[in-house]
Amino acid sequence: MQTLQVRTPSHAYPIHIGKGLLADFSLFAPHIGKKAAIVTNTTVSALYAGALEKLLRDNGVETFSIVLADGEAHKNHQSLLQIYDALLAHRADRKTAVVALGGGVIGDTAGFAAATYQRGVPLIQIPTTLLSQVDSSVGGKTAVNHPLGKNMIGAFYQPQAVIADLDTLTTLPEREFSAGMAEVVKYALLGDAAFLAWLEENIGGIMRQDADLLAQTVAHCCQMKADIVAQDETEQGIRAHLNLGHTFGHAIEAEMGYGNWLHGEAVAAGMVLAAELSRVQGCLNAGEVARVSALLRAAALPVVPPEFPFERWLAHMRHDKKVQNGQMRFVTLRRLGEAQVSVLDDENLLRQVLSA
Amino acid sequence: MQTLQVRTPSHAYPIHIGKGLLADFSLFAPHIGKKAAIVTNTTVSALYAGALEKLLRDNGVETFSIVLADGEAHKNHQSLLQIYDALLAHRADRKTAVVALGGGVIGDTAGFAAATYQRGVPLIQIPTTLLSQVDSSVGGKTAVNHPLGKNMIGAFYQPQAVIADLDTLTTLPEREFSAGMAEVVKYALLGDAAFLAWLEENIGGIMRQDADLLAQTVAHCCQMKADIVAQDETEQGIRAHLNLGHTFGHAIEAEMGYGNWLHGEAVAAGMVLAAELSRVQGCLNAGEVARVSALLRAAALPVVPPEFPFERWLAHMRHDKKVQNGQMRFVTLRRLGEAQVSVLDDENLLRQVLSA
Repeated sequence: MQTLQVRTPSHAYPIHIGKGLLADFSLFAPHIGKKAAIVTNTTVSALYAGALEKLLRDNGVETFSIVLADGEAHKNHQSLLQIYDALLAHRADRKTAVVALGGGVIGDTAGFAAATYQRGVPLIQIPTTLLSQVDSSVGGKTAVNHPLGKNMIGAFYQPQAVIADLDTLTTLPEREFSAGMAEVVKYALLGDAAFLAWLEENIGGIMRQDADLLAQTVAHCCQMKADIVAQDETEQGIRAHLNLGHTFGHAIEAEMGYGNWLHGEAVAAGMVLAAELSRVQGCLNAGEVARVSALLRAAALPVVPPEFPFERWLAHMRHDKKVQNGQMRFVTLRRLGEAQVSVLDDENLLRQVLSA
Repeated sequence: MQTLQVRTPSHAYPIHIGKGLLADFSLFAPHIGKKAAIVTNTTVSALYAGALEKLLRDNGVETFSIVLADGEAHKNHQSLLQIYDALLAHRADRKTAVVALGGGVIGDTAGFAAATYQRGVPLIQIPTTLLSQVDSSVGGKTAVNHPLGKNMIGAFYQPQAVIADLDTLTTLPEREFSAGMAEVVKYALLGDAAFLAWLEENIGGIMRQDADLLAQTVAHCCQMKADIVAQDETEQGIRAHLNLGHTFGHAIEAEMGYGNWLHGEAVAAGMVLAAELSRVQGCLNAGEVARVSALLRAAALPVVPPEFPFERWLAHMRHDKKVQNGQMRFVTLRRLGEAQVSVLDDENLLRQVLSA
C-alpha cells in the first residue's frame, strides 16, 4: 500500500492506494464514528457493499446502505434527495460518516450530500473505477448535474480519506477502464512530458492491467492531483488546468444525453479538440496533435467528436463554469506537458476547430 | 452608518448598519461585478426590489430578479431549484453576485443557492427584517428545510457583505418585528447580563421603534454574533449557544407546520422551556425564569408552547443537528447572561419541563 497526503488550507487527508484495502478496518477507524451510511449504486452494491457493510458492522459501526440507480443520468437532484431522505430516516447526525462507494458519479453525488447534510458530515471516498481513483475522488470537488449544465450545483468539500483499492478495477468493464485512461492521459498532457513518454511506452501493459504498472499510474496521477489541489483548492488559478478537454467534453455529454458518451470518452474527444485549438493558436504542430490522438486510440478511446451544429456547441459552452463576465475560457496546451488558460475572443478559431 | 467587521478563518467582511443604505451604490461596488441576481420574495419585491434594480442598473450592473413565494413554508428544495433554473437561464457565471433581499428565509435559501451554484458565487445579504438583521444574515449559516427537519440541508458560506438598512423595518408587520425581538432577547440571555438589563429598561422604546434605540440594538446583536462567529465559524463549540431556545423552537415549527408559528415566536416559547430546563437542572430560580417570560411578553411574544404529545417533541428533537452519536444536547443557562451546552441523559427532566 502507498499513502499520499493531500494538504489544503482547510484540511489534510490521506489517499491510500493498494490491493485488499476494503478488508482493512484500520484505514477506516480514524475517520468513522458509531454510524455510517454507505452510498453506492446498483452495480457496485452487488459486488462490494455486502463485504464493506460486514467489515464495518463487525467493528461495531452501525451501517446502512443507500443504493442509487447506476449512471451519469442519475447524477441529479433526485438522487440527492434520495440520499437526504435516507439519512434522515436513519437519524444520521453530524458525526455520521458518509462512505461513497463507487465511481465518479457516486463520489460526486454522495460527496455533495455529505457537504450539505446538516451543513457537512464526515466523508470517506472509496473510488471503484479507474477514473475516480486517478481523478474525481481526490481534491474535494462535489456536484450534481442540472438539465442545463454538468456539475452546475456543487461544493468544494474535502473527504476525511480516500481509499483506492486496486482490486476493484478487476471487475470494471473495459469501456469504463478506457474512460479512466482519458484522465490519466490528461495529467500527462497538462503537466508532465516525462509521464507522457512513459505512458506511450507502457500503454500496452497498462491496458492489460499489469498490476505494477497500474499501481504506478494511479499513484502518479493522485500525486499530481494532490499537488495541484494543495496549490489551489478552489480553482482560482492552476486547478483550472485539470479541465483540459472538459469544456468540449461537457458539451458532448450534454448534447448526447448524459451517460451515452461516458465522461472519459467525451474528455478524450475533447482533448483532441483542445490540442487542435492549441495548434490553430500556434502552440502545437500537427505531429504533436497526432501524438495525442494516437495515445488515446491506444487506450481504446474515441478521438473524433459526434457531429452537431456549431450553435449547439456554443450554447453548451456558454454555460461552462470557466466563463467569466460572459467570456469563454479554454484550457489549451502551450506544449505537450504544459497547459494554459486562454480567453477565446475570436469565435472563428472555434468554428475552424469544430468544423475540421 | 456603523460598520462592523466579521473575521473568520475563511474570510473577512463588513456589516453596514444604518438608514438609507439601499440607495448607496458605494456599499455594493466592491462586491459586485458585471451581473447580479436579486433573490427576493413577493412581499419584499413590491417594496424594495424596483429601487435596488434601478440603483444597480444605473451603475452599469446587468440585473435580474428571482421572486420566491413568501414564507417559511417555501424555504425548501423547490425554491432552491427555482433559483438555480433562473441563474442558468440568465447565464449567471462564477462572478455573478447573488443579492439576498429579504428576511431570514430569503437569506438562508438564496445564501445556500449562492454557496452551491457552480460551487460558490459572491453573496450579498440585505436583511429586511429585524430577525435577519440581528441574527440570520450574519455568520454564514445557509440552509433549506426538509420535511423531516428544519435547516437540515445547508452549508457554511460567508457573504461578501451584509447591508442592514434600518429603513426597511418601517414596513415590517408588528408580528414580524416581535419575532425578531426573540433573537435580540436570546443574545442577552446567552451572553450579556448588562444588555439584558438595558433591554428590560428600554423594551418600551424599542417596541415603538425609536430610531436610536433600534440602531443600538441591531449593532449590539451583530457585534455579539460577529464575535462568536469569529471564534467558531463552523459550530464546533461556542457557536452552539446561538441555538438557545431553538431545539424546542424547531420542534414547535415542525409540529405546527412551517410558517404557522413564526420562527421567532417558536424560539420565544422555546427559550422559556430552555429556562425552565435550566431551573430543573438547578441553575436558574423561578424568579429568573419569570424575568425571561416577562421580557418576552413585553415584546409581544408567546411564552407558552402549543400542546402536543411528549413523543412528538422527542421525535422532532431527535432530528436536531446538535444530536451527536445519538445523544440529545440542549443549550441551557448557567445563569442569566451565560449559556452552556448540556447533554440530556435523563428524559424525565424533559418530560417534567414539557408537562409543566
